[in-house]
Amino acid sequence: MMAKVGLIMGSISDWPTMQLAAEQLTALGVSYERHVISAHRMPQTLQSYGEEAASRGIQVIIAGAGGAAHLPGMLAANTLLPVIGVPIKTHTLNGVDSLLSIVQMPAGVPVATMAIGDAGAKNGALMAAQIIGLREPQVQRAIGEFRTHQRQEAEQSERQF
Amino acid sequence: MMAKVGLIMGSISDWPTMQLAAEQLTALGVSYERHVISAHRMPQTLQSYGEEAASRGIQVIIAGAGGAAHLPGMLAANTLLPVIGVPIKTHTLNGVDSLLSIVQMPAGVPVATMAIGDAGAKNGALMAAQIIGLREPQVQRAIGEFRTHQRQEAEQSERQF
Amino acid sequence: MMAKVGLIMGSISDWPTMQLAAEQLTALGVSYERHVISAHRMPQTLQSYGEEAASRGIQVIIAGAGGAAHLPGMLAANTLLPVIGVPIKTHTLNGVDSLLSIVQMPAGVPVATMAIGDAGAKNGALMAAQIIGLREPQVQRAIGEFRTHQRQEAEQSERQF
Amino acid sequence: MMAKVGLIMGSISDWPTMQLAAEQLTALGVSYERHVISAHRMPQTLQSYGEEAASRGIQVIIAGAGGAAHLPGMLAANTLLPVIGVPIKTHTLNGVDSLLSIVQMPAGVPVATMAIGDAGAKNGALMAAQIIGLREPQVQRAIGEFRTHQRQEAEQSERQF
Amino acid sequence: MMAKVGLIMGSISDWPTMQLAAEQLTALGVSYERHVISAHRMPQTLQSYGEEAASRGIQVIIAGAGGAAHLPGMLAANTLLPVIGVPIKTHTLNGVDSLLSIVQMPAGVPVATMAIGDAGAKNGALMAAQIIGLREPQVQRAIGEFRTHQRQEAEQSERQF
Amino acid sequence: MMAKVGLIMGSISDWPTMQLAAEQLTALGVSYERHVISAHRMPQTLQSYGEEAASRGIQVIIAGAGGAAHLPGMLAANTLLPVIGVPIKTHTLNGVDSLLSIVQMPAGVPVATMAIGDAGAKNGALMAAQIIGLREPQVQRAIGEFRTHQRQEAEQSERQF
Amino acid sequence: MMAKVGLIMGSISDWPTMQLAAEQLTALGVSYERHVISAHRMPQTLQSYGEEAASRGIQVIIAGAGGAAHLPGMLAANTLLPVIGVPIKTHTLNGVDSLLSIVQMPAGVPVATMAIGDAGAKNGALMAAQIIGLREPQVQRAIGEFRTHQRQEAEQSERQF
Amino acid sequence: MMAKVGLIMGSISDWPTMQLAAEQLTALGVSYERHVISAHRMPQTLQSYGEEAASRGIQVIIAGAGGAAHLPGMLAANTLLPVIGVPIKTHTLNGVDSLLSIVQMPAGVPVATMAIGDAGAKNGALMAAQIIGLREPQVQRAIGEFRTHQRQEAEQSERQF
Repeated sequence: MMAKVGLIMGSISDWPTMQLAAEQLTALGVSYERHVISAHRMPQTLQSYGEEAASRGIQVIIAGAGGAAHLPGMLAANTLLPVIGVPIKTHTLNGVDSLLSIVQMPAGVPVATMAIGDAGAKNGALMAAQIIGLREPQVQRAIGEFRTHQRQEAEQSERQF
Repeated sequence: MMAKVGLIMGSISDWPTMQLAAEQLTALGVSYERHVISAHRMPQTLQSYGEEAASRGIQVIIAGAGGAAHLPGMLAANTLLPVIGVPIKTHTLNGVDSLLSIVQMPAGVPVATMAIGDAGAKNGALMAAQIIGLREPQVQRAIGEFRTHQRQEAEQSERQF
Repeated sequence: MMAKVGLIMGSISDWPTMQLAAEQLTALGVSYERHVISAHRMPQTLQSYGEEAASRGIQVIIAGAGGAAHLPGMLAANTLLPVIGVPIKTHTLNGVDSLLSIVQMPAGVPVATMAIGDAGAKNGALMAAQIIGLREPQVQRAIGEFRTHQRQEAEQSERQF
Repeated sequence: MMAKVGLIMGSISDWPTMQLAAEQLTALGVSYERHVISAHRMPQTLQSYGEEAASRGIQVIIAGAGGAAHLPGMLAANTLLPVIGVPIKTHTLNGVDSLLSIVQMPAGVPVATMAIGDAGAKNGALMAAQIIGLREPQVQRAIGEFRTHQRQEAEQSERQF
Repeated sequence: MMAKVGLIMGSISDWPTMQLAAEQLTALGVSYERHVISAHRMPQTLQSYGEEAASRGIQVIIAGAGGAAHLPGMLAANTLLPVIGVPIKTHTLNGVDSLLSIVQMPAGVPVATMAIGDAGAKNGALMAAQIIGLREPQVQRAIGEFRTHQRQEAEQSERQF
Repeated sequence: MMAKVGLIMGSISDWPTMQLAAEQLTALGVSYERHVISAHRMPQTLQSYGEEAASRGIQVIIAGAGGAAHLPGMLAANTLLPVIGVPIKTHTLNGVDSLLSIVQMPAGVPVATMAIGDAGAKNGALMAAQIIGLREPQVQRAIGEFRTHQRQEAEQSERQF
Repeated sequence: MMAKVGLIMGSISDWPTMQLAAEQLTALGVSYERHVISAHRMPQTLQSYGEEAASRGIQVIIAGAGGAAHLPGMLAANTLLPVIGVPIKTHTLNGVDSLLSIVQMPAGVPVATMAIGDAGAKNGALMAAQIIGLREPQVQRAIGEFRTHQRQEAEQSERQF
Repeated sequence: MMAKVGLIMGSISDWPTMQLAAEQLTALGVSYERHVISAHRMPQTLQSYGEEAASRGIQVIIAGAGGAAHLPGMLAANTLLPVIGVPIKTHTLNGVDSLLSIVQMPAGVPVATMAIGDAGAKNGALMAAQIIGLREPQVQRAIGEFRTHQRQEAEQSERQF
């Protein structure tokens, strides 16, 4: 099966965070491929990936990066696919640098930015699925079930409180 | 023609910003409906809108709000459609409050957050079109032409520099 | 005895903080009920709770939430009772996101915001008691005794210094 | 008629903001007295005011101050009445200093903090009225009418959009 | 011997930081008295201390406080002696709240603000000594020797590097 | 008459702010000299000024600077006199950069930091006078009168309110 | 004459700031070429420019960009020449976003970051000249004269004060 | 061999960070000397070092400092050599104070600022090498090999992913 989501991170050290996106995609039955593409160490690879993703069947790109996080924005500059940005939490500035480097894109090239860190990674997967779910009913059903499940979990923690 | 994008704002005073989203959608040939729904003054309307948007044919919601900006997140809580959040610039905190209130959503309910202010509004429209373009080739073509056009504009400002 | 304070939190994980509010209410002899109501996972429950709280005898709501903290503001939008907001400390932004999402409410729907974290939870209970104390002399006496007690503690730590 | 709300500000220069609180109180039929009490220039007056407010019939204090805003917290230290703090917007730091100086009170002495600036002043009045409304039905009715009115205004701006 | 410096802190929990001021004063041969005076729990004590310090022989007050740190400014409001403020590092905001609550005093009542935390406590003692040294040559000599000593330490760490 | 206060600024463009310090010193009868000494353009002059100030009769130095504001700290490194720092408001960061560059001095070399901008300049003069007033009764009397005057002004604005 | 400095900006709207760099280079006799290269609109041009700059005789690149400012970092990723980054002041966040997006580069690919805005643009030119001056004595002489001149200006403003 | 880079830090406690710069310089075959020069404890040494560095053969200075970090800027004020600033991470403010104190230099005296902490130290060495590499081909080759190596490492972590 061709991957529908490209899960890209700037460094292998981002995997502990981005893994949450991977797990969420799997749980929703959305296929993905994962790659480490450093915007600053592998700029040509970044450009090729962006340019070729759509023709390879990718529908949404999720890109996680930290610090001066250029990966999501530069991928967005090289594709017409929706790019979701996940700001990785950083040691010095807690990911405020990552957040601003990703969300403050100039008019013309948007990046759909998620929360800093783990919540953002998981939500990146959910947003990708919500986008794909617009044309794949079984994905939308899976999200619906996920939502029901998390509501029930919250209600149960309320009942057992 | 049924609207494909729901363009929602928390207050009529957000229109000067959100208008840029409306114009961009029109330029790309994407139909939209626009509504003022205050999360805090009209909570029931907010809930109904979220619950019924998909069945009315809406595919993407763009929600702009400022300050303690609860509109995008509460719409996202009431729909499975992708919700794009536009943080409106505020008088006191320049939209930092709007940004954090929108982007820092907990795991489970994502909002695709754009830049603060005008750039964010325009990019919200482009992101919505990129999502819709995944299944409507003519929208994707329009985005492609828009990208070409803005690249040419940049190149021309370079040539005339 | 009917509960006078509704102690609401967005997630069971907020309990270690909100427990301080519960303990302080108990110490002051103010009855409360506690609930987990996620603004984003249980939006209908949130709305019902806000709408029905007053008729059930609740006089003050204390709501704790973190990140894009919509719970206090959305409760406030659905009730005329005073709502006290407690910004939960977050892993990434230390609760600055929670604080701004709660305090920066637009004109028309106020939330009485406390300090971030533990101090805020305890103070939320005290503020609730000060409000209830306006018409219940024994609660006001209890607060007076609490104040005397904490002044004496401070003075004693001074004497033993 | 004895005033029910004490509207205090640190400087006459805070009046353009605090006036919005005064107007809102009047609109809701809640009596108030207004005073300029500088925490740093008139510390004894501040202390006396706090100590005597309750016995003079005041039920709620609304205190606005900017910069190193000590007025609300020091009033709270001298009374058992609920104190509502309004952070005045400042020229240098936009009121972030005022907000943190007011909201970050230590455990034991709460201040119910509102948004920075005009919205905060108006909301301070509404919160005071919501507190007083707990035992004065006509005040609660007035707030209910205010809420209905502002919802209708929002709906009308939606209809005429 | 009458104390020349009043070393005041808002809570006994500030002592680990303020102890560094005490040790530095001792090292420079400057006498001090130390007190816990909570601005919010013991407002009358605070006022009395400020009013009477000068007549008791105190020449400089060093006041440490955290969060909504009102102690230094309120002491300054009640005395003509120089007041030095030490912002205590806080758990949630790292002392940014303490710093702004102390340094942003309005025109008319200054507080001489030091760095956040340990460095600030030590420097508070040095600043107090530099002020007292203006009329006590042996204190100024002690500071001169301290400066020489710390320069030599730095030079030695350079030589042994 | 020999000047008692050295009023130093990093650039002639700081004068509109520092002028408020000058006027306040004059009002209190404290003599001063004023100089433009750029830390980065005139580092030798800075060093000489610091080294020679005490022997020329200066008792307190007030230094105003903006941005990466090194002037107050480098003066403090070259003298045992108390140095008061005034953070000048900047165009880009509103003086947050100035404040942190002045206040966050390492242990060993303190700078007595005032509020950002105009209030800080005026308060710098008052703090200098409070220090000088420790040994010059007429200066202390002048400050006392200033305090009385500003209290009366506040009380009058209260009476005329 | 071949240009020694490449003066690049992300948008023609950055020219009013970057012009100060151009003027300073001219004043120092350092040749430059100027280009508008949008990182997001012209990613291929960006890459080519970086790859070919050295072979065309460019020795230093000065890149100005605002918001999610990816231009300096992406140029640095494509060349071994020193890249100087100038954070352009932005309407919403005053250039804090630009600064963090430029300065927080990951280990491996440095950008020499200047101050936000006009000062940064001028200093970018000076830093470029200081680098080129290491092997071109006449450039170093020009910088020396510039330094002398600006010291004299500061001294003159001091004398005429 | 004469050292080409001066590696200066404000305190021996900065060595764990600055050591990464030293190791990177060694790896690239660039000679350096290292010194502890405290801007505030050893101002004369700082000035001498800056004035004499060029004549001793130093081509680039890398200066690391934390808090009110005056070292890089004051070195830059005393030399025409390029000065690279490394903001050391601080306990209270995570290095935001260091960053602003270094990067916000006024027009006329630039400091080439790197990222906060470890990444900044390593990048400081790389930037120094890129500058020196402009006239020493073997240094430029070493950087080229370093870049190739780090790209290969990234690609390998991608392959083994």
